[in-house]
Amino acid sequence: MVTMAIRMSGETAGRTTRVAMVMETIRQRIAGRGLTPGAKLPSVRRLATTLNVSTSTVVDAYERLVGEGAILSRPGSGFYVANQAAPFSLSQAAPKLDRAIDPFWISRQSLEADDGDHKPGCGWLPASWLAEDGVRRALRTLSRADGVALAGYGSPLGSSPLRTLITRRMAEHGIEANPDQIMLTESGTQAIDLLCRFLIEPGDTVLVDDPCYFNFHALLRAHRARIVSVPYTPSGPDIEAFAHTLAENRPRLYITNSAIHNPTGATLSPVIAHKILKLAEQFDLTIIEDDIFADFEHAPAPRLAAFDGLDRVIHIGSFSKTLSAAARCGFVAAKPEWIEALTDLKIATSFGGGRLTADLVLQVLSDGNYRKHVESLKVRLSRAMTDVSARLRNLGIVPWLEPRAGMFLWCRLPDDLDAADVARAALESRIVLAPGNVFSLSQSATGFMRFNVSQTLDPRVLDVLKDAILRPKAKAGTQASGAG
Amino acid sequence: MVTMAIRMSGETAGRTTRVAMVMETIRQRIAGRGLTPGAKLPSVRRLATTLNVSTSTVVDAYERLVGEGAILSRPGSGFYVANQAAPFSLSQAAPKLDRAIDPFWISRQSLEADDGDHKPGCGWLPASWLAEDGVRRALRTLSRADGVALAGYGSPLGSSPLRTLITRRMAEHGIEANPDQIMLTESGTQAIDLLCRFLIEPGDTVLVDDPCYFNFHALLRAHRARIVSVPYTPSGPDIEAFAHTLAENRPRLYITNSAIHNPTGATLSPVIAHKILKLAEQFDLTIIEDDIFADFEHAPAPRLAAFDGLDRVIHIGSFSKTLSAAARCGFVAAKPEWIEALTDLKIATSFGGGRLTADLVLQVLSDGNYRKHVESLKVRLSRAMTDVSARLRNLGIVPWLEPRAGMFLWCRLPDDLDAADVARAALESRIVLAPGNVFSLSQSATGFMRFNVSQTLDPRVLDVLKDAILRPKAKAGTQASGAG
Repeated sequence: MVTMAIRMSGETAGRTTRVAMVMETIRQRIAGRGLTPGAKLPSVRRLATTLNVSTSTVVDAYERLVGEGAILSRPGSGFYVANQAAPFSLSQAAPKLDRAIDPFWISRQSLEADDGDHKPGCGWLPASWLAEDGVRRALRTLSRADGVALAGYGSPLGSSPLRTLITRRMAEHGIEANPDQIMLTESGTQAIDLLCRFLIEPGDTVLVDDPCYFNFHALLRAHRARIVSVPYTPSGPDIEAFAHTLAENRPRLYITNSAIHNPTGATLSPVIAHKILKLAEQFDLTIIEDDIFADFEHAPAPRLAAFDGLDRVIHIGSFSKTLSAAARCGFVAAKPEWIEALTDLKIATSFGGGRLTADLVLQVLSDGNYRKHVESLKVRLSRAMTDVSARLRNLGIVPWLEPRAGMFLWCRLPDDLDAADVARAALESRIVLAPGNVFSLSQSATGFMRFNVSQTLDPRVLDVLKDAILRPKAKAGTQASGAG
Repeated sequence: MVTMAIRMSGETAGRTTRVAMVMETIRQRIAGRGLTPGAKLPSVRRLATTLNVSTSTVVDAYERLVGEGAILSRPGSGFYVANQAAPFSLSQAAPKLDRAIDPFWISRQSLEADDGDHKPGCGWLPASWLAEDGVRRALRTLSRADGVALAGYGSPLGSSPLRTLITRRMAEHGIEANPDQIMLTESGTQAIDLLCRFLIEPGDTVLVDDPCYFNFHALLRAHRARIVSVPYTPSGPDIEAFAHTLAENRPRLYITNSAIHNPTGATLSPVIAHKILKLAEQFDLTIIEDDIFADFEHAPAPRLAAFDGLDRVIHIGSFSKTLSAAARCGFVAAKPEWIEALTDLKIATSFGGGRLTADLVLQVLSDGNYRKHVESLKVRLSRAMTDVSARLRNLGIVPWLEPRAGMFLWCRLPDDLDAADVARAALESRIVLAPGNVFSLSQSATGFMRFNVSQTLDPRVLDVLKDAILRPKAKAGTQASGAG
């Protein structure tokens, strides 16, 4: 249920908005295959009645869609979905939200920012916090490796020593797997993407947390999934809502983080984990447990994959958050027959894997210094968490919970501010923020914002934030007084 | 039109084969969405008549499909496609051919082979032929790069200096593009995969050459495309057949190599290139020109993208074939508005790109030694081509043409031998061959085989090949005399 992009609000919505709403309705039906190429569109009169708009609004919308090539007009007959559908565009499939609360807005702003820019809204640590020295040493070691390591393709599953090492690391979280149950990928995201290809069909329903990592929305839209969500609580998904949604919507798949939830920093409790798995069994639900923040934990939290034994839970991870985001390497752990099919799919869609980056990751992880690096990173993050939490509270920005670990603080803004307004204001000063609704399918996080504490330490960030909070507040005040 | 996996041949086909054929027919209809979840299957009697098999064969097939969870039996009502479709499996969607002529067979055999094994059937040079020294130097240089280069995410389009360098290289082939029209990917395959996601819907028709690179089949099946093919001639696709297929099947997309065609080694002629583009315009066809063998050319051949100006042609490339397959890096060149949408899609499905491998590729390409490396590589390949061609002729294996450049020789085997039999025999001696039908949608290349000359120089390969040719010949002789 993709939330309708533009909400109608009676008299205040202008004609332009209504035309856009009609266009979006049709685009979504086409994207969701409710209207297939060649299909006749509803008559102008019928759609006008259904959507409670004037016939001229529908005519206007249809004519613009003809202009875009999405539909065709056959005079005397009606309107039809274009046969050669315009190239699929994610931003078309996604709700045409204001760019400030579009999932791509934040990805692209963060990735396009200059290396030195401040990005409290991004999902990674500053490069200087990562295993830079380890990477340097690994590069030097690799420069002396044999020629096949430097120039040959990797094996279908990927580096066997790295897969063995991954199983050892998973065992520390209680997840038993053998190396043949691990397939390396180019990234955690690629792992989820391959799994979506393997597990779901266009139109299938997929369940996510609300809020959840915004790229899950984008990824699932690329797969044309129907997305539903359940509210997230400090100990996991709201289990009543979870049970209800399974019964009601019969999702095929649930994608979640367990150890450190993105964006809330919450931790799944054992009792909720157990209930999730019982319900998953009852409703034949497959679960992808995205564990890319595993290395940040101080004490291991429950993993769904540990309870389930990799039966209906698939465990994925990567090394981008603690080691290096420049050397892309992720993995999937699943039952052997699924790994077999996923390997074919990986070969078909990206051929081999990145042998060199897998070797590099292996080098860094095997290096005795990596554990030390992670330990000092965790201390540094804890300090930043305490520090930033206090400073944000001073601005009236209140954390929803104090996370046990990780880099994220999920905060409520003061005075019913709209986080999108604040983000827009901050961007003028080249500070990239992450407004709450980017993470929320139900768009119920208007007053929330995710802060990456490692990127919020600079005084300038706090200054801009302060300004960005004061400005919309002042504006809101003006508008309110103007209206009143 | 996926070729039927198992051919019925009257009395010789056993009952098991007939049951498998019926199962495969149903699986393909489900995979191709001809039968959607919940749909009722044809009655046992009707399907038996249609497929010219007994009703008990259909009953048997339906029961096994129920066992697999693909369909459900509703007693008193009939059989239905399962609502929760079993996880999508490529090997299910692909024809269940004998493993020896399954596209995955060759990919996986080649990738799983030990580094020292001989793989005349694989699509890459021995690692020792690649830019090993350049990679070593680049790794040492990178170990001194700044921290962001070593640990940060890449920009959405990927390294700007590398994109600039790619446009300069493309200009040498007459293709004009600016760096904003280039998006880096993890590999050439990933580039095509993103394009398929962007350009086609499940069920859309895509045109390929016959023969063509076998992974195009696997990739397109992963996208649930309907695949059609046109015969390839020494100067490009058979243009009559091409025109006919466009008119008849209205494919949305054509995927081809121009400079050095895989597997035939043929070169597109300017006149055919021009005709292709005229027809593409007439039938609104988009073309992906896969140019990953560009660096092997002695004299540049025509590129479709050069004539077309990146309007309806998309140009892709990578560095796996001449530089290193361990450092994955490919690119797409297309019109700006497509690059914009592709970038969103790349972020959604794999987040950033491999910054480190892009920097490594840039280092190697900028290194003055790379041109020298490529020049000596071309000389080495020319020699191997002459040498292997002569040796194969001695065994009665005759090249279809003498390629101008590259590593492939597309050859006809002697005495109507089935290349799959020869490949199977050679595999017992751990030599991986590439039988012709792996490349042929129409399965019309039974008597052909692709040889990678760089991997066919070892005397042991020729010995095994000789044996592998003699053995099936002897067997064929025995069978013939037994039958006669």
